[in-house]
Amino acid sequence: AAVAGNHATDPVSKCVAGAHSGVVGPASLTQCLLERVRRNDSAGPAAREAAAFIVGGQVVGRCLPRTIAELRRFPAWFDVSAEAVTLLDRPEWTPLEGFALCKARSAAVMEVLETLRAEGRVPMLQGWRGEPHAVRRTFHSEAQLVIERAAAPMFGAAAYGVFVNGYTCEGPGAGPTHIWIGTRSDTKPTWPGRFDSLAAGGLAHGMMPQQNMVAECAQEAGIPAQIASALRPVSAISYTAFNEDCWGLKRDCLFSFDLELPADFVPVVIDGEMAQFQKITIQELVQLLMVRNDDAWKPNVGVVLTDFLVRHGYADADDPAFLELVGALRGAECV
Amino acid sequence: AAVAGNHATDPVSKCVAGAHSGVVGPASLTQCLLERVRRNDSAGPAAREAAAFIVGGQVVGRCLPRTIAELRRFPAWFDVSAEAVTLLDRPEWTPLEGFALCKARSAAVMEVLETLRAEGRVPMLQGWRGEPHAVRRTFHSEAQLVIERAAAPMFGAAAYGVFVNGYTCEGPGAGPTHIWIGTRSDTKPTWPGRFDSLAAGGLAHGMMPQQNMVAECAQEAGIPAQIASALRPVSAISYTAFNEDCWGLKRDCLFSFDLELPADFVPVVIDGEMAQFQKITIQELVQLLMVRNDDAWKPNVGVVLTDFLVRHGYADADDPAFLELVGALRGAECV
Repeated sequence: AAVAGNHATDPVSKCVAGAHSGVVGPASLTQCLLERVRRNDSAGPAAREAAAFIVGGQVVGRCLPRTIAELRRFPAWFDVSAEAVTLLDRPEWTPLEGFALCKARSAAVMEVLETLRAEGRVPMLQGWRGEPHAVRRTFHSEAQLVIERAAAPMFGAAAYGVFVNGYTCEGPGAGPTHIWIGTRSDTKPTWPGRFDSLAAGGLAHGMMPQQNMVAECAQEAGIPAQIASALRPVSAISYTAFNEDCWGLKRDCLFSFDLELPADFVPVVIDGEMAQFQKITIQELVQLLMVRNDDAWKPNVGVVLTDFLVRHGYADADDPAFLELVGALRGAECV
Repeated sequence: AAVAGNHATDPVSKCVAGAHSGVVGPASLTQCLLERVRRNDSAGPAAREAAAFIVGGQVVGRCLPRTIAELRRFPAWFDVSAEAVTLLDRPEWTPLEGFALCKARSAAVMEVLETLRAEGRVPMLQGWRGEPHAVRRTFHSEAQLVIERAAAPMFGAAAYGVFVNGYTCEGPGAGPTHIWIGTRSDTKPTWPGRFDSLAAGGLAHGMMPQQNMVAECAQEAGIPAQIASALRPVSAISYTAFNEDCWGLKRDCLFSFDLELPADFVPVVIDGEMAQFQKITIQELVQLLMVRNDDAWKPNVGVVLTDFLVRHGYADADDPAFLELVGALRGAECV
């Protein structure tokens, strides 16, 4: 992947009129990092304006206006206003609770989604995967509703993941001097050829972050359990991106782990998600992340590594962008 | 200062009916840390409900209902509704801008504050200090208004500060093993005898964080410039506390620095703010911060050190409180 690039190749830019216009002149590292974080949170402003999606009395997502317009056609299923889309629990569900209630709701919503899919009106539903996505208020909450995974952005349902920053300390001080990054396989359907973390993965409902991070380290980079035992959860980042068809909101909340690796450790491509790994210096990482409007990185990885740089002291506290940068790393609600 | 204690001694608890009730049973470190952060952000929920304070078209603070009731008595100065208190710019100020406009507004608001002070109706104004506080939208913004410092909580104007986490790495790995903490002098008017950071200070308008942190390190703990050159800005925390009389909101935004100290470095009490310094292990820090409803710490220092523990991997990613903890560290708007 070329490091330089044009933001027009960024699939999410097209959802926001005038996105990234007016960016001119040199900028500090702190400003460049803020720009990168904001670019990844492309739907953040739209999400804050979007209607709440309410199931069982809990806000579990957000809907954009064009999704609202579609759901308005199903008044037996949804109560729809500009402020909120509420899934209507039916009188016959009154005796139900927990899993049974979730199942009844899920079957009802499936009817709507299958109708919309058959009509071909909502582009994202053409990517139907037959995989479940648990819609719930927080990561640890019980599912209120289970929907087709391809439909999750219609409802702005949060998704969760884990990412590792695998670094080495090869200098005289205690800080990181090098970091391992991956290059995604050219055959990946999403972000082929882009720079990626050493290992990462999504968290299906019920999967716990620490154990899953250990497993991803083994599966994606051949990191043995003994080394992975040094994994430390250090942060979380969140953002909202538009999905590919601009109809929906992808709200992600990512657990970030630091992992100090032995200086002589070399990761191994195991499952083919990555084409290769390389170790770069932290200064090289800084240079790569300073490139503006690039298309070198899987966008959320650029944000995870920005958080890494901030936590390790590479941002400038005196820079006008510092506080905004620290806050922007968790741009979306992250619970 | 005793480590154990009762929350009834906490001056802010009294502002919130039922605060801290229902806290029973053992809890994980991550849950204890979240509890500590929430306790310090005692006015967070009230602040989110509070009316915006608007000057020059910008939201620069928040007002509680009883402050609103007082300001309603000055309709030539303020437009007051339940949602917003707006300082009215006068027709004769139209030609003014920048510093001159700020000065005119400040003189007008001073009339109101002096009236309220003379009436003795607003307790916090009895602590009049004759010191200016710049009210502005962000840390780097121009002042929209300058008010008496003791009155800042009436308007929920943000204050800024710097804190250092001074640690040593004396183990085989790269991580911190010990941290230096201070004990505040018994003669300090606020939080006497409590545990404190190694060095900290407020940032008057126009002071920059990095330089001020270096100066505070020298003045409070005798840290020479050569060692202080390793200061790294790593985070920011924010919260809203009630002020002592429960009439106002203290919204603080703190720049946090990590400083790796040589293992043999010993700080020196210089300006008498601290009674003493001591080096404790990170495990001892964990134990101290796990004590619930204690009165051992200057409350915001407990939060700065909680952020330190999170960034260095001491929280548990699988704990139901993890994401909430990470988010709660910046409970108030922090720009």
